[in-house]
Amino acid sequence: MMQAVFRKLILRKRPVDDVGRRNFQVVNADLQQPKPGQVVVEVKYLSMDVAMRGWMLAGHSYVPSIRVGDVPRACGVGIVVNSRAKHLEVGDTVIGQLGVQEIVTLPGKDLVRVDVRKITPVTWAGYLGLTSAITGYLGLLEVGKPRKGETVFVSGASGSVGSVVGQVAKLKGARVVGLAGGRANCRRLINEFGFDDCIDYRASDLGKQLRKKCSERIDLYFDNAGGDVLDTTLDWMAPHGRVVLCGSMATRNVTEQKGLMNVRSVLIDRLSVQGFVLFDHECRYAEAVKDLTRWHSSGRLRLWSSEDLREGGLVGFSRTLADLLAGSHDGKMVLQL
Amino acid sequence: MMQAVFRKLILRKRPVDDVGRRNFQVVNADLQQPKPGQVVVEVKYLSMDVAMRGWMLAGHSYVPSIRVGDVPRACGVGIVVNSRAKHLEVGDTVIGQLGVQEIVTLPGKDLVRVDVRKITPVTWAGYLGLTSAITGYLGLLEVGKPRKGETVFVSGASGSVGSVVGQVAKLKGARVVGLAGGRANCRRLINEFGFDDCIDYRASDLGKQLRKKCSERIDLYFDNAGGDVLDTTLDWMAPHGRVVLCGSMATRNVTEQKGLMNVRSVLIDRLSVQGFVLFDHECRYAEAVKDLTRWHSSGRLRLWSSEDLREGGLVGFSRTLADLLAGSHDGKMVLQL
Repeated sequence: MMQAVFRKLILRKRPVDDVGRRNFQVVNADLQQPKPGQVVVEVKYLSMDVAMRGWMLAGHSYVPSIRVGDVPRACGVGIVVNSRAKHLEVGDTVIGQLGVQEIVTLPGKDLVRVDVRKITPVTWAGYLGLTSAITGYLGLLEVGKPRKGETVFVSGASGSVGSVVGQVAKLKGARVVGLAGGRANCRRLINEFGFDDCIDYRASDLGKQLRKKCSERIDLYFDNAGGDVLDTTLDWMAPHGRVVLCGSMATRNVTEQKGLMNVRSVLIDRLSVQGFVLFDHECRYAEAVKDLTRWHSSGRLRLWSSEDLREGGLVGFSRTLADLLAGSHDGKMVLQL
Repeated sequence: MMQAVFRKLILRKRPVDDVGRRNFQVVNADLQQPKPGQVVVEVKYLSMDVAMRGWMLAGHSYVPSIRVGDVPRACGVGIVVNSRAKHLEVGDTVIGQLGVQEIVTLPGKDLVRVDVRKITPVTWAGYLGLTSAITGYLGLLEVGKPRKGETVFVSGASGSVGSVVGQVAKLKGARVVGLAGGRANCRRLINEFGFDDCIDYRASDLGKQLRKKCSERIDLYFDNAGGDVLDTTLDWMAPHGRVVLCGSMATRNVTEQKGLMNVRSVLIDRLSVQGFVLFDHECRYAEAVKDLTRWHSSGRLRLWSSEDLREGGLVGFSRTLADLLAGSHDGKMVLQL
């Protein structure tokens, strides 16, 4: 399993419009032996996220930009193959920021061991992974802090983040209303995922629907949408309500250049609007993993579908990312290395 | 002093464009005898605030709208003339939401006694009053929470709120940069008020000036301006920075219909943007009064100028408010009843 040389992907050229093979290069690299506290991980599955493209762009963002020549940032699942960290053993399955490479040497403290007896590694990279369930869990609980009896509204409710946000908010005793596309998705969120209600964004006027389905205004809005959805929702927040702006937003291509009109609501209703970035909350990953394992194992946390597992390894990365960005996927996309 | 009948102003017609005599009416009213816990206050001075006009408009806002027939909301200073509250005695000078009326019966807990041995009642209604120094004090300390060594940026820095925000932030160990109009005001904020630096909003490009004068970005922005100033500042906040949106903004006529463009900064830099409304923090008034008294008496807190004291009582209210809204005043405006 261990080898002196391994393969990694490096960024050759920052993406401009689309992403393709020309943006990356597979190169050989020497294995870094672990120092005290470090472990060597064989990377197995990577979560494919729209955010990846943003991470490779230049300019000020919420994480340091990937430089040309660097390995693209990716979260995923691997197996410990060498350990000088006390809490991790060879053979452990771990999650973390592993990067698009076959092997990586990292501080053990940046990795969290996961239980694969009932939950597959693919699901730990996919629906239960850092950029999905763990993002939802931490964004909701660390920033949003839902309280019993509050009305929580979540956009992107049938997504891999939103579906978890809604369910965890329910577990915390909130009333949960989702925003999703299509009647079938809305029905499923209510019937199978236990949402109290759901608004179909394809159907009709969001402002009117919010007034109807959240008649006592919204205490907590978990925003996976931005733009007009955020604007309309701001206008129907309860006094002292909280808005969590979740990471995914920043990573979409910003073409829309209409500003946010309802800033006045932030003042009038004394709202707190706060940005959430997963990577600020590394020290809570283990707690999230523990709760999510427990809830999923006991049937209290459902996943939207199976992962859309892609093969192709390092060489297939660019095509898989292009597919993701083009929207041609079915469920949370995971790349097998 | 006590009388069975007193005069009060009532709203006769909500303002549409300008404010004038036709909007109000002086009427007689019967004095309400105090119940246990209540006190009767003879109103002496009222703070004249741009916000007053907003309070009289219909529609959802941060305080209940004044209805036609009600006494307009006003903060000010009065003398206790009858007390059934333990902590207040006849003759005490108090501040609170007294309304535009000669006498008012209120719960004693809504009033705070102030010391008039060194600070005049006019100043307690004006520069040190609820809508000036106390707004700045509480907005800064309760919501903004400046920490030692942080960079605090405050707009409207030569105003009755902003000048206090800057000085209190200095007292808390922050580095303070103001935004004010004109070179003379900027110089004065630096030389007399102890600001570390000041940007003249009339002079040049705010974004460029911020990058120069807050070279390590802004940890805390106290916003008295909104609009473009807020937008430009959002783009230069430090990671995890906080923005306090202060009350005055909501009360300006909203003519500008350009939205906020830099919402993305809230996410990227994990900012917390929060609305502040003074009246949520009544339980802290006494603490604010105590600190402001101490700081002002010891010379650590300066006031921008003398109050612009207007006579005319209830009948003069409409003209005084019209003058204020037209900008024809010199210093914080106070109406003598």
